[in-house]
Amino acid sequence: MEPLYIIKVGGSIIDDASNLKTFLAAFARIQGKKILVHGGGKIATKLAADLSIPQQMVDGRRITDQETLKVVTMVYAGWINKQLVAQLNALASPSIGICGADASIIIAHKRKHPNIDFGFVGDVDQVQTDLLLSLLQNNLNIIIAPITQDESGQLLNTNADTIAQEIAKAMSKHAATTLVYSFEKKGVLKDVNDEHSVIPTIDQALYQQLKEQHSIFAGMIPKLDNAFAAISSGVSKVIIGDAMELSELINGKSGTTIS
Amino acid sequence: MEPLYIIKVGGSIIDDASNLKTFLAAFARIQGKKILVHGGGKIATKLAADLSIPQQMVDGRRITDQETLKVVTMVYAGWINKQLVAQLNALASPSIGICGADASIIIAHKRKHPNIDFGFVGDVDQVQTDLLLSLLQNNLNIIIAPITQDESGQLLNTNADTIAQEIAKAMSKHAATTLVYSFEKKGVLKDVNDEHSVIPTIDQALYQQLKEQHSIFAGMIPKLDNAFAAISSGVSKVIIGDAMELSELINGKSGTTIS
Repeated sequence: MEPLYIIKVGGSIIDDASNLKTFLAAFARIQGKKILVHGGGKIATKLAADLSIPQQMVDGRRITDQETLKVVTMVYAGWINKQLVAQLNALASPSIGICGADASIIIAHKRKHPNIDFGFVGDVDQVQTDLLLSLLQNNLNIIIAPITQDESGQLLNTNADTIAQEIAKAMSKHAATTLVYSFEKKGVLKDVNDEHSVIPTIDQALYQQLKEQHSIFAGMIPKLDNAFAAISSGVSKVIIGDAMELSELINGKSGTTIS
Repeated sequence: MEPLYIIKVGGSIIDDASNLKTFLAAFARIQGKKILVHGGGKIATKLAADLSIPQQMVDGRRITDQETLKVVTMVYAGWINKQLVAQLNALASPSIGICGADASIIIAHKRKHPNIDFGFVGDVDQVQTDLLLSLLQNNLNIIIAPITQDESGQLLNTNADTIAQEIAKAMSKHAATTLVYSFEKKGVLKDVNDEHSVIPTIDQALYQQLKEQHSIFAGMIPKLDNAFAAISSGVSKVIIGDAMELSELINGKSGTTIS
């Protein structure tokens, strides 16, 4: 198969119509097969507020009771997913929008945690690639909302970064796969206060060195650990950077490439 | 291809968890290829009320301003579509949920009306069958939410009965297609006040006779006109009846069969 790009786009891009338009135009222009994974947290948070559904975040994860599950399913799999699809179709970049529950492409289970009840939050067990391969071979972009289900048919709110990573790992058995985390930052910074200090490439050796020198922002360590885990599972490279420079990220002219 | 069933399920079934469970179990048991078209009007109306978005209906159609479009897209393509998918998957009846915008399976345009501005309401121009055929050949049920888009990427709220009919017409070129309208009524009644007066079969000759005798409920005439239009476009038969008796409808043991 052609090279495959799996692109996660962060919520702050989706919240801004003009940024989203710029991002989607660049996405449509990428040559090769493409999967886009999105969230939409701020729109969900606003809808929950409008409906007076209290929201609680623990470790950056949304505690998902029944009413919150309904909100995130409506916002992610409904409003945002179909907006992205319709805009890409209008750009002559044919797209289909699904979530992890569709055709059981992702099998998940309700998170078990010793101390915290996250509610209807899912952790990924397995990615089934058959439908994804078939849709890509039909020359469709696949737009994925971060909702999954368990075997009983319970929908589950699931982290979009994790979904992008798990799909990239599974698809790397079938295609040269690049995983892109695009958001509002320029990449991995040497100096967290200096947006111009982006480290262009990081390999395992440099990563160890940066960690030993404590010259890497602590909040970036889990992201980089995940990136190296993806690479050791067969993903060709992982790119982290600014969603407003998607073409440059893909070409290695912007952001941080991990390989 | 195997026989194809295109089933529209009415909103009052979706509103009731127990009725929905009964319906989906029967749907999962149908032999052959299956497409399910759903609405979800009452849930959308309730969400609009919870968000204090005023709703206005004209001739049974929802005037769809920007905020209402968001509500119906969230409810139909998000919450309801993914609930149906997850429940069918859990019944080992693999299903994918999409809307008319996905892969541009339906091309629509914003309704033009001389006197009434319906807002973001779509009328269907064309159904593209490629993706539908490919998904059915992958042994997936297709669950379709009644949201479409126009060529500019504008999402449009679109009548689910019409979508079911247009898909049935287009698919009848590829498979022996049965179109089922399942809802809370027993079928076409000879006496509108007597649920036991279901007319089991209606052909063109009987329909003319019933109309001349004025022995058919006026509200049923557009539905029957549509059914005969579908048949003259190649659909094998149209069945109208009780969603709680789906197996019997398919077998001709319940409801009204139009052919």
